[in-house]
Amino acid sequence: MADPRFFDRQGPFVLRDILPRVGIEDAPQRGADVQFLDVAPLDTAGPEDVSFLDNPKYLDAFKATRAGACFVDPAQSVHCPTATIALETSTPYSAFARAAAAFYPTESGLDVSSDAPAVHPTARVAPRCTIAPGVTIGPGAEIGEGTTIGPQVHIGRGVVIGKDCTIHHAATVTHAIIGARVEIGPGVRIGQCGFGFAPDPPGYVAVPQLGRVLIGDDVNIGANTTIDRGAGPDTEIGDHSRLDNLVQIAHNVVLGKGCVIAAQVGISGSTKVGDYVVMAGQVGLAGHLTVAGGITLAGKAGVTHDLPNPGTYGGFPAVPVRDWRLKVATLSRLAKKRYRKDG
Amino acid sequence: MADPRFFDRQGPFVLRDILPRVGIEDAPQRGADVQFLDVAPLDTAGPEDVSFLDNPKYLDAFKATRAGACFVDPAQSVHCPTATIALETSTPYSAFARAAAAFYPTESGLDVSSDAPAVHPTARVAPRCTIAPGVTIGPGAEIGEGTTIGPQVHIGRGVVIGKDCTIHHAATVTHAIIGARVEIGPGVRIGQCGFGFAPDPPGYVAVPQLGRVLIGDDVNIGANTTIDRGAGPDTEIGDHSRLDNLVQIAHNVVLGKGCVIAAQVGISGSTKVGDYVVMAGQVGLAGHLTVAGGITLAGKAGVTHDLPNPGTYGGFPAVPVRDWRLKVATLSRLAKKRYRKDG
Amino acid sequence: MADPRFFDRQGPFVLRDILPRVGIEDAPQRGADVQFLDVAPLDTAGPEDVSFLDNPKYLDAFKATRAGACFVDPAQSVHCPTATIALETSTPYSAFARAAAAFYPTESGLDVSSDAPAVHPTARVAPRCTIAPGVTIGPGAEIGEGTTIGPQVHIGRGVVIGKDCTIHHAATVTHAIIGARVEIGPGVRIGQCGFGFAPDPPGYVAVPQLGRVLIGDDVNIGANTTIDRGAGPDTEIGDHSRLDNLVQIAHNVVLGKGCVIAAQVGISGSTKVGDYVVMAGQVGLAGHLTVAGGITLAGKAGVTHDLPNPGTYGGFPAVPVRDWRLKVATLSRLAKKRYRKDG
Repeated sequence: MADPRFFDRQGPFVLRDILPRVGIEDAPQRGADVQFLDVAPLDTAGPEDVSFLDNPKYLDAFKATRAGACFVDPAQSVHCPTATIALETSTPYSAFARAAAAFYPTESGLDVSSDAPAVHPTARVAPRCTIAPGVTIGPGAEIGEGTTIGPQVHIGRGVVIGKDCTIHHAATVTHAIIGARVEIGPGVRIGQCGFGFAPDPPGYVAVPQLGRVLIGDDVNIGANTTIDRGAGPDTEIGDHSRLDNLVQIAHNVVLGKGCVIAAQVGISGSTKVGDYVVMAGQVGLAGHLTVAGGITLAGKAGVTHDLPNPGTYGGFPAVPVRDWRLKVATLSRLAKKRYRKDG
Repeated sequence: MADPRFFDRQGPFVLRDILPRVGIEDAPQRGADVQFLDVAPLDTAGPEDVSFLDNPKYLDAFKATRAGACFVDPAQSVHCPTATIALETSTPYSAFARAAAAFYPTESGLDVSSDAPAVHPTARVAPRCTIAPGVTIGPGAEIGEGTTIGPQVHIGRGVVIGKDCTIHHAATVTHAIIGARVEIGPGVRIGQCGFGFAPDPPGYVAVPQLGRVLIGDDVNIGANTTIDRGAGPDTEIGDHSRLDNLVQIAHNVVLGKGCVIAAQVGISGSTKVGDYVVMAGQVGLAGHLTVAGGITLAGKAGVTHDLPNPGTYGGFPAVPVRDWRLKVATLSRLAKKRYRKDG
Repeated sequence: MADPRFFDRQGPFVLRDILPRVGIEDAPQRGADVQFLDVAPLDTAGPEDVSFLDNPKYLDAFKATRAGACFVDPAQSVHCPTATIALETSTPYSAFARAAAAFYPTESGLDVSSDAPAVHPTARVAPRCTIAPGVTIGPGAEIGEGTTIGPQVHIGRGVVIGKDCTIHHAATVTHAIIGARVEIGPGVRIGQCGFGFAPDPPGYVAVPQLGRVLIGDDVNIGANTTIDRGAGPDTEIGDHSRLDNLVQIAHNVVLGKGCVIAAQVGISGSTKVGDYVVMAGQVGLAGHLTVAGGITLAGKAGVTHDLPNPGTYGGFPAVPVRDWRLKVATLSRLAKKRYRKDG
């Protein structure tokens, strides 16, 4: 379930309450009065959770799920475990998004109010902290001893920040648990909603983003960098990692320890990066990839597939840097040859 | 003319007032006392407007213009319509920029004051809004019912925001008309001056940016994304479009409905993008292009020419993704062959 | 030495005080009680400064240094000038970082306090300035006549801003000396710590960044752009240069006069760019390069080596744009040939 420090769960709901909200008009033959407590992915769902099958690659997880009910395309519902109620719909992902929004109706909201004090009385600020003018701190947040928070910083509800951190001007920190001695540059955005939505013509429906951002100790994050919170799993940044300015870290990304990420790098959703990976400027990684520890990526590299082996990679699509240089040299030679022939 | 909610026009001016400001010392033989009310592009200018011809591709528009006066290179002034006064100069674009600055002298300014209340008394905030601490709202702005505005957000003069929007911490919204149910992430910048200027050695002169940003309903904009206002036309984002973090939208860009724009994409000035276009991370589009509806652009694609036909495009310069893959495979094969030959 | 407007130096220290902090347990045979005032690079250090040799390409500077003491690998200490005390360590860069932190212990800190007024009483704000609500201005800062500062802007300690500047909402300016008629967009970050650190397993140790940002007259900086302060030398932006949105300027970069830098460009540390250089969107430059004045870089170009000659360059790695077009055309032709052969 979603961390209650950040998310307020509603319910329980019976299917009879949920189904009209998700556009399923014909209730299933059984279960209209079964009570549900939460939403969850197929692999972690239990009998009191609602889940969904959308991407066919999760069919095995569907066959093994312990979810109490599951949105599923009619073509796949034959594989539904007998203990799971199949909720048939041609749009299981948007149905799930709407069900999740019933349990977490304020997920996309801002936990602010027009008249609360800027530092909420339930926030706990340890001794030896410096809190500059214009700072807002939400309910239940915890600021560790010796931490300095610059002007106009916003710390959201329930956020935990460790000891001896420095958070510079105008940074935003929500939905996050942060270690000790972390430095967060000016204008950094941590914990906002990830880029998660389901097609729902004529537009899209937001999928509640119920995860967090977990940041280790001794992490350093450059100016105007953005780190989205997880969609359900968490987004994680390992101890000692250093991110430069204008870096994008999407939801569910896991970055290992001691990574060095130069400016304007973008890491797409759910990609896992090992320890001590180095990325030069403007590198981009596609989503759902795995990059092994110790890898170095040359500037502007574009990673489109898993990189399981250590080494240095470059180019787009990224290949071992030796191969990339060979490609560059080969093309130069062929172009010159053609030029001489044409010339 | 520029939207008076955002821009204060001065004048009228007679040519005798304007010409000294733009470096034309010899007044034209006729018209020094003709009165002008505004500046405008060739195609929309009328008898009371001053216009200019700079790019030769607009020569036909020049021949057909109804403008009362027009800055033009002496080599082109022979094509000037008889009802239009030709204002000859070797630098028509910077002359126009200075004339425009006479009519709109505060365009680059900030509508702020040292002692006004943070929420201006002429701003209209509808019922059921939440306005967090530190918010500033300029004169005449309108905030729709049920909208939530996070801490330290700045809403400029005259901005209109629809119902049930959410504007997160430290975002900036100026010169914009925004629909309903729009979510604007933390640190987003909407409505600032676009990258418009004319050479004026030893530097440049800013061309007043007199357009707006028009954002439809149900749009979602990610953290630290920037959307410049139009130069004269407007910058537009269609209903249901979703922009991720750190995206750049330049002046006069028109983005259709239901587009999905991933992180770190950049769209250059005056490019028009159709409905339901999908762009993966770090895509870049040159300026003044047209991209047809329904197109998908693969990650890091660089679009340098119009894409009139639906399909998926990739690489740089962007080509149909099948062709791009073929190029990648061809180069890999040639490089390996060379490696074997050299090895 | 570091500019005392921005940095508080501690000390003097004797080597006996410094060495335990940097992990050197065996003090050198001589000099334990010699007093030092500061840290400095090899070429500018004097008898009262501590320096270091890390990169072997600075061996000649080491041989000629006037530094009073120098961290150096034992393998290189034979080259140490006789007047310089060799401080042997296998990790001279991290040792230097720690020594520098002894002299400048608050370098990474934020000069803010919990109870000072938002505009510090020692800041000097000239007549005819407009200071919007929520602005914070640090001790000793100087704001020139006629300058307008938007809401929630933070001006750090000692910053100097010239006449008739405009600083938009939520921008950050620290460690900077800024000329006249400069426009700084919303969310811009100027003067934060650069991406400088030494390996120090299991993580890294920050190298104090003791330089500044120097910005000339008539410069224009777009929204959410980031400009790091120098590491020791300064980061410089020449008169009349214009930077678009989301640009990254790393520490020690020197940008000439009249440059035009489009959105999402990234310039890596210590690269020097001449006057009137134009860079289109998403260009990237590696570090420690020199780019000659008057050069134009096409969109998405990736510069990996010095460009000493004027001209237009494109592609990655960047080559003269004519060569790049030839490479693109050659590969297209070869790919088509292969396609026909395979098809």
